[in-house]
Amino acid sequence: QNKLERLRANRLFEIIVVSVILFSAMVTGIKTYEIPLQILRLVDWLDYAITLFFVMEISVRFLAEPNKRDFFKSGWNVFDTIIVAVSLIPVNDSELAYVARLIRIFRVLRMVSVIPELRHLLNSLLKALPQLGYVALMMFIIVYIFAAIGTTLFAEVNDFLWGDIAVSMLTLFRVMTFEDWTDVMYETMEVYPFSWIFYLIFIFLNTFAFLNMLIGIVVNVMEQ
Amino acid sequence: QNKLERLRANRLFEIIVVSVILFSAMVTGIKTYEIPLQILRLVDWLDYAITLFFVMEISVRFLAEPNKRDFFKSGWNVFDTIIVAVSLIPVNDSELAYVARLIRIFRVLRMVSVIPELRHLLNSLLKALPQLGYVALMMFIIVYIFAAIGTTLFAEVNDFLWGDIAVSMLTLFRVMTFEDWTDVMYETMEVYPFSWIFYLIFIFLNTFAFLNMLIGIVVNVMEQ
Amino acid sequence: QNKLERLRANRLFEIIVVSVILFSAMVTGIKTYEIPLQILRLVDWLDYAITLFFVMEISVRFLAEPNKRDFFKSGWNVFDTIIVAVSLIPVNDSELAYVARLIRIFRVLRMVSVIPELRHLLNSLLKALPQLGYVALMMFIIVYIFAAIGTTLFAEVNDFLWGDIAVSMLTLFRVMTFEDWTDVMYETMEVYPFSWIFYLIFIFLNTFAFLNMLIGIVVNVMEQ
Amino acid sequence: QNKLERLRANRLFEIIVVSVILFSAMVTGIKTYEIPLQILRLVDWLDYAITLFFVMEISVRFLAEPNKRDFFKSGWNVFDTIIVAVSLIPVNDSELAYVARLIRIFRVLRMVSVIPELRHLLNSLLKALPQLGYVALMMFIIVYIFAAIGTTLFAEVNDFLWGDIAVSMLTLFRVMTFEDWTDVMYETMEVYPFSWIFYLIFIFLNTFAFLNMLIGIVVNVMEQ
Ligand code: NA
Ligand code: NA
Repeated sequence: QNKLERLRANRLFEIIVVSVILFSAMVTGIKTYEIPLQILRLVDWLDYAITLFFVMEISVRFLAEPNKRDFFKSGWNVFDTIIVAVSLIPVNDSELAYVARLIRIFRVLRMVSVIPELRHLLNSLLKALPQLGYVALMMFIIVYIFAAIGTTLFAEVNDFLWGDIAVSMLTLFRVMTFEDWTDVMYETMEVYPFSWIFYLIFIFLNTFAFLNMLIGIVVNVMEQ
Repeated sequence: QNKLERLRANRLFEIIVVSVILFSAMVTGIKTYEIPLQILRLVDWLDYAITLFFVMEISVRFLAEPNKRDFFKSGWNVFDTIIVAVSLIPVNDSELAYVARLIRIFRVLRMVSVIPELRHLLNSLLKALPQLGYVALMMFIIVYIFAAIGTTLFAEVNDFLWGDIAVSMLTLFRVMTFEDWTDVMYETMEVYPFSWIFYLIFIFLNTFAFLNMLIGIVVNVMEQ
Repeated sequence: QNKLERLRANRLFEIIVVSVILFSAMVTGIKTYEIPLQILRLVDWLDYAITLFFVMEISVRFLAEPNKRDFFKSGWNVFDTIIVAVSLIPVNDSELAYVARLIRIFRVLRMVSVIPELRHLLNSLLKALPQLGYVALMMFIIVYIFAAIGTTLFAEVNDFLWGDIAVSMLTLFRVMTFEDWTDVMYETMEVYPFSWIFYLIFIFLNTFAFLNMLIGIVVNVMEQ
Repeated sequence: QNKLERLRANRLFEIIVVSVILFSAMVTGIKTYEIPLQILRLVDWLDYAITLFFVMEISVRFLAEPNKRDFFKSGWNVFDTIIVAVSLIPVNDSELAYVARLIRIFRVLRMVSVIPELRHLLNSLLKALPQLGYVALMMFIIVYIFAAIGTTLFAEVNDFLWGDIAVSMLTLFRVMTFEDWTDVMYETMEVYPFSWIFYLIFIFLNTFAFLNMLIGIVVNVMEQ
């Protein structure tokens, strides 16, 4: 028990685990290239080896835990176990193989569970989430209202961009990122010459809400 | 009276009202799709039901108010009442129906009046408004001067982009958002090879004014 | 003397001056539209009236000044006087009329000299200038080095974008604003498949320098 | 010795060195233009003169150093010496001349070693690097996962954009800069109508990570 605990805390062990994760990501990456069958077989073999290593590593973590019940109280341990467990299921069905391949991609997320600094970063990201939630809701309301107006007015101008409310919201999100937004505008301006007012108000409202979000972040950071 | 006040303050009541507003937004959204007549009838019926619910809800709020005069002192109550009152007017005329449909869209804004956090957010947005006003005026002056110069020099190059001062201002706003601004520049550079100076100075001035606005926001937040 | 001083400090006088400046901007704007000769004549007449008003206004300011020598010590007074003096010169030559028209545009800048808040804003902008100067120099060095490398490598790929160092710097400024930068990249990648490294390093360096500028601004604001 | 030390510290000497560096940058710039042979010869002659000046300048710095060993302890001195030493090597081979020309470009970086303010700025940039390192790693993981998913799903839609994992990562970096990202999205939406979810989640995650980076910067600045 004591030996395993020391192994788990060992810096070299951490580096090896990170290296295997990176190697596993590379192996997943290689599979996206067209490669000769022989190398593909090697890659598949490496994939099994990586999975085995991960099984071993999680076993070490589990056995090193003094109180076994606490192990699954950590969300990261649950995440790690699920990712590795799914990799273990043998898949022959091509349909399932597809899904298994996608899940294998998430193995790179194990980096976050292994490197403490990334775990810390993610936690601070999650802590900021509720604060940004209401700003996001506010922006969603803005986009929704403009999308409803946009659909009512511009649906006949361009059905692809303004056909229904979902499509209009996507178009307005595009306008928010300034992505070829003048193409969208010039088109509606041919039918409604004053529709530039619609876009300008929309852009100003969003810029304003975004600036306000920045204020919120700075204020929140200062209060801590 | 006391019963109504308790109802108004009830958390469940708030959640039901928010749900109905969201449902009302969805109903408005569904109408933008091409739907069979039968469902459209159902949707119209739902619309009436929502309007009735809103009438009831505002009545509760009004009756719960100890001093009836204070009710309309709150801008949000006035806003809610107008939105609901307009929804009540029966419209047969297709022209008016169009307007009524647009006003119905604004019902989603009732979210802001019902959820205190959004109301708080909007208030802080409005508080920041006068501070940003002078920066906006400064940027408007910059855009105006460059638009006047742009129209004088480039009107003959591209009438669509630089034809008159209003159109030039729109073009410069586009340059400000970096939206295909090099297409605009390369075109004028064919006639005036040194016109890139015009765009670079314009972009630098605006970036500078925008950075200054950020300084202003940070300073203002700190002083509070 | 005392009467003039009171007039200069009068809030109503300031509002009238601002209104005339805005009206003068509108008159300049109207001239960019194709208008019938009769209205053009009216506009020209208005232009003279505005110039006369400005002459009068500056005279008031000058006469209200207890110490006449101090008047021209203020940069804004010098600016105002020059702008108005140039408007006074009668121009018949079409070549000069063109220049006079451009100078007339700058009359809207008188807004800054008249409204104290804008003058204050501009001063704080100018104060931040030297601080940003070194960051700008750093970014210029980055752009220069990448432009020199870009010209050496990519001149044969696209002469219009990478023909000489000046043109390359403009292209890289375009990449900095993310304006259709992938079009530029894909083109050079056809000849140099690894040239994406060039663009990515350039973008990261600039983003990094820009973030550093933001740090600098925040630090500076805090030290005050 | 004392005389050399005073020369090194002399403000005028610094200005001359900066001027020669700027002049050297200009000379490198001129060579990118098509110029007559006579001027090219003059430019080459100037290039030799600049190199000689730099040799002399570094000698002054070296001789002015009381403890000769400390000279090469400064990274900037090593950098300066290498840049100048490489410029000294006579190259006749056209292949090598190409490389020599590229190295000559980096002479402008000597600005940073000569101007203390720029050196200070670069140091503060380098200090912020490790802090940003983990955010960069986090964003890399996000891009990697989305690239792996993107390649699996969209490779058949557009081989140029999603062919393999490297190309997909470049495409997603493009989406991150909002560069014609809707063109990429609309294309995959034709085959997978719900692929907009993929792009929206990707954009939100990145915006969120970027905002978090800003928080980190502000917090770090405040703790100092
Ligand atoms: Na863009
Ligand atoms: Na674009």
